[in-house]
Amino acid sequence: MNISTDTRTPLTLLGTGAMGTALAHSWLGAGHPLAVWNRTPSRAQPLAAQGAELFASAADAVAASRLVVVCLLDDSTVGEALAGVDLRGKDLVNLTTGTPAQARSRAEWAQARGARFLDGGIMAVPPMIGAAGSGGYVFYSGSRTLFDTHQEVLAVPAGTLFVGADAGFAALHDVALLSAMTGMFAGVAHAFALLRKDNVPPREFAPLLAGWLTAMTPWVHKAADQLQDGDYTKDVVSNLAMQVAGSATLLRTAEEQQVSSELLVPYLALMERRLAGGHGEEDITGVIDLLARPSVA
Amino acid sequence: MNISTDTRTPLTLLGTGAMGTALAHSWLGAGHPLAVWNRTPSRAQPLAAQGAELFASAADAVAASRLVVVCLLDDSTVGEALAGVDLRGKDLVNLTTGTPAQARSRAEWAQARGARFLDGGIMAVPPMIGAAGSGGYVFYSGSRTLFDTHQEVLAVPAGTLFVGADAGFAALHDVALLSAMTGMFAGVAHAFALLRKDNVPPREFAPLLAGWLTAMTPWVHKAADQLQDGDYTKDVVSNLAMQVAGSATLLRTAEEQQVSSELLVPYLALMERRLAGGHGEEDITGVIDLLARPSVA
Repeated sequence: MNISTDTRTPLTLLGTGAMGTALAHSWLGAGHPLAVWNRTPSRAQPLAAQGAELFASAADAVAASRLVVVCLLDDSTVGEALAGVDLRGKDLVNLTTGTPAQARSRAEWAQARGARFLDGGIMAVPPMIGAAGSGGYVFYSGSRTLFDTHQEVLAVPAGTLFVGADAGFAALHDVALLSAMTGMFAGVAHAFALLRKDNVPPREFAPLLAGWLTAMTPWVHKAADQLQDGDYTKDVVSNLAMQVAGSATLLRTAEEQQVSSELLVPYLALMERRLAGGHGEEDITGVIDLLARPSVA
Repeated sequence: MNISTDTRTPLTLLGTGAMGTALAHSWLGAGHPLAVWNRTPSRAQPLAAQGAELFASAADAVAASRLVVVCLLDDSTVGEALAGVDLRGKDLVNLTTGTPAQARSRAEWAQARGARFLDGGIMAVPPMIGAAGSGGYVFYSGSRTLFDTHQEVLAVPAGTLFVGADAGFAALHDVALLSAMTGMFAGVAHAFALLRKDNVPPREFAPLLAGWLTAMTPWVHKAADQLQDGDYTKDVVSNLAMQVAGSATLLRTAEEQQVSSELLVPYLALMERRLAGGHGEEDITGVIDLLARPSVA
């Protein structure tokens, strides 16, 4: 079957690093006419052989399409690449990694230049892009109109999830998930380190560890209920006082196994601080109050 | 249907705290004659109504059965409860929470008193005990003969998993999983804290967070492969240098959201130290080398 490309929305992509290249492949594969610019032109060259039109300047690439997707190193690189470029009437989708505040500033900046703006946070690594069933997806926030207009194009590389009109929300959700993952990876590193002294084969331990972490994720829902209801004593199975008592065994085992406890100590210390505040009957959810100021109503 | 109890193995349980009581319920429910002792007799009293035989001294309770399960507060409580008690010919199963070294010492102590010894690490909270399909289970290590002899009895409260003749291995596996979970919970706390300033409803975020953490657990298998093969550059998708660069966005977002970064910093600092050691092309697995001494061959 020959797919006619002239019915597919054309778009421009700025940035052909690992992620940009994966995005380009998925759109080209789906038959979208694609204009491409990269600061180092040689890195974009291979895409020409697959049908992309290469441009020597960002301004010319932007002029080629109404829909412009930006996937550059960081926010300041976006500012440099688009400095002086005519953005009037453009639909600008920023997939560059950044903070919520950077996304909000960039949204104002784009709107002041006559563009609609959508920010995206990619929850996937490049090999997951364009791979059906990979589980990867992209958080979007900002212009709902832009999102609705181009959802079909945006859904080509990965699943889409619109999380709010606040342009900072995609980055906020993205960073929150990455931060939680960082904590999990820290815990996993400590666990593997504990086994080393006794030569427990990592491959034998891995299924137990993966299974246990997966089995414990429902706690996320309980914590969410407690946070949203403002009641940290709801459905408590193992209260803070018991958990603090139990943490002594974790620290003592680390010492026995000659493993640094630097990755565990900050959280255990936070639990102790919360306990000292008289919250022993609560779930551990209360430690969140020690990390962040209470929300404003 | 009337189940005759006289074919079921009788056993003794020392300790009727929350976990001990849950264990007692499951054995009584399955028709096992149960002898019980608790330091505070009133806490064991309700079990008498369900058919348990209460004893005023640990020595008498131990004398009542060959199989003796101990579930007390901590290892020193075990030593106190069993001081001077005749353990000759007993099959002692210690489900008291402790460290690997405590389990090994207790095994030697029990063997010196003429008992076979099995240590257990319970991967469940009391409500999961005796609940089919709860996913809870118990790590066992020490005497394989004891385990094989009594596996049917031991399998009544929860699944069983024998992890080695080294009596310390049940505790080691137990603590490793709990430590990993602690890291995950720390990451989850940070994630929820990030959302607070912008009033993102925790219940809306929870499914995304639980889904993301579950989707990321396969990394455990990759890390295990890298550790076991001693090759941290195998199948790297996002290398250490990229991850360290990306961590700036995590820290900056925490600052914007007025959230303390104390739970993230130690792991990010470890990544930086590993990067400074010239390992930028590796996966993040190498941080484990900074936590634990290399294994002895």
